[in-house]
Amino acid sequence: MTEEVLGLPLPLSCATRLVAIVGDPIDQAGSPALFNAAFRRRGIGAVLVPLHVASKDIAGLLATFRATRNWDGLVVTVPHKVAIADYLDELAPAARRVGAVNAIRKTSDGHLIGSNFDGAGFVQGLRSEGHTLARRDVLVVGAGGAGRAICHAVADEAPRSLTISDVDDVRAKSLAESVSIEHPGLAVHPGTPDARGHDVIINCSPPDPKSPTALPVSLEGADERSLVIDIVLKPSWTPLLEAAKVRGCTTQSGVHMLSGQVEAVIKFFWLTGREQQ
Amino acid sequence: MTEEVLGLPLPLSCATRLVAIVGDPIDQAGSPALFNAAFRRRGIGAVLVPLHVASKDIAGLLATFRATRNWDGLVVTVPHKVAIADYLDELAPAARRVGAVNAIRKTSDGHLIGSNFDGAGFVQGLRSEGHTLARRDVLVVGAGGAGRAICHAVADEAPRSLTISDVDDVRAKSLAESVSIEHPGLAVHPGTPDARGHDVIINCSPPDPKSPTALPVSLEGADERSLVIDIVLKPSWTPLLEAAKVRGCTTQSGVHMLSGQVEAVIKFFWLTGREQQ
Repeated sequence: MTEEVLGLPLPLSCATRLVAIVGDPIDQAGSPALFNAAFRRRGIGAVLVPLHVASKDIAGLLATFRATRNWDGLVVTVPHKVAIADYLDELAPAARRVGAVNAIRKTSDGHLIGSNFDGAGFVQGLRSEGHTLARRDVLVVGAGGAGRAICHAVADEAPRSLTISDVDDVRAKSLAESVSIEHPGLAVHPGTPDARGHDVIINCSPPDPKSPTALPVSLEGADERSLVIDIVLKPSWTPLLEAAKVRGCTTQSGVHMLSGQVEAVIKFFWLTGREQQ
Repeated sequence: MTEEVLGLPLPLSCATRLVAIVGDPIDQAGSPALFNAAFRRRGIGAVLVPLHVASKDIAGLLATFRATRNWDGLVVTVPHKVAIADYLDELAPAARRVGAVNAIRKTSDGHLIGSNFDGAGFVQGLRSEGHTLARRDVLVVGAGGAGRAICHAVADEAPRSLTISDVDDVRAKSLAESVSIEHPGLAVHPGTPDARGHDVIINCSPPDPKSPTALPVSLEGADERSLVIDIVLKPSWTPLLEAAKVRGCTTQSGVHMLSGQVEAVIKFFWLTGREQQ
């Protein structure tokens, strides 16, 4: 089969199960191609479609999700990851600890359970490229939904230290405290967006629409021993990655984080018992 | 490309436009394969997915349809064709005259406009097989949503007479009167489900779940000059068609009615001005 076919779901029929990704805007998400290719590879009779829905209409969307009997799962992207938790029946631990949801499954009795695979997907994406966080000094820039998920997942990997930076100091401090409570032995603290003193620099902050080429973190001091990761998906090659490459750093784009969580989300939608959430 | 690929939409992305078919149950509808094949043939970046939604949840579904910015159209099947009209902003003439909706488009300002392509699709399906209704004596069995659409479309084709039968006499009489008002010169009247005296027998009544092999119309008197059509889609080869074949009648299944309206519905969703509704 051609590559084009491999990126499509199996032929759609009225027996096809439905999953969706919701966001506002939605055209930045790369999920349909990744999920539909995975469905085809695994022979799953399902399709993932994009839904462009504003925040004020999320409650109605979830009511329709509950009511639509062949609709099994919902992937959640910006700006809905935090607010959508209020409408769910249950949060899995991965969603509770980061206060954000990026996947919702519907149980056979119609309950909606939110979880979060951003962190696990990020770590899986690093592993798939042969990188490790153990015993490294890590800087995470951006303490929003994705940043929170990634900070907790980074902490799980036993780095030497974790510095968290955000334009909102309070948000960075609060996230550092929350991670610290779960990982009492770890050196985690808020800090400035400055690569100096860090081996791994992870950008989780969205591009500033007013100055899209501005770097979210100073790379002064980063060199060929540094690993620089930008989870921004559009563009997948960001000004930060370009600047890091010029300095000789190892770089990684956000697409690995996405592909790293596809299999886990599919298991969550259809194959998990409660213990695997 | 293989036949399988031709039945798939173009590769899905977050820029893909969404259309859906809603019903309860939904697994009888053949629309996804037909529509998605048509999208691929025409290079339309859209996908049609099935939605299994009960009557009590239709109002919520339509609110979500309005709110979802990349969702452009909704195909409607049993049991929602009549009740869904109450939630729309406007009905096209084809929907008004039959009191049932089988396709809804969303205008750029978020209005929902219902129309009905069952009748036009049925006639188009007959034409595609080389049949005509002009100057023929036609019996339609079943005066529900599809029956109403088909009776009006049959009347448009200038038959010699039109007999309408239904298990509910009042419903048959009411439909005959409504068709008669629009076609004052046509001999249209309610009658019994009896092939005698008719050249064309059209079954629009659903199978009786209690006796699925019972014939909805007596074929006594039907012969090789008769054309017998059953719009039931599952099974596509019904006991009625089998009985007609045994008698030497020409037969036609419901799939032509469906394929006959796909192009018209696609135009309605994306290409029409108001005059073409």
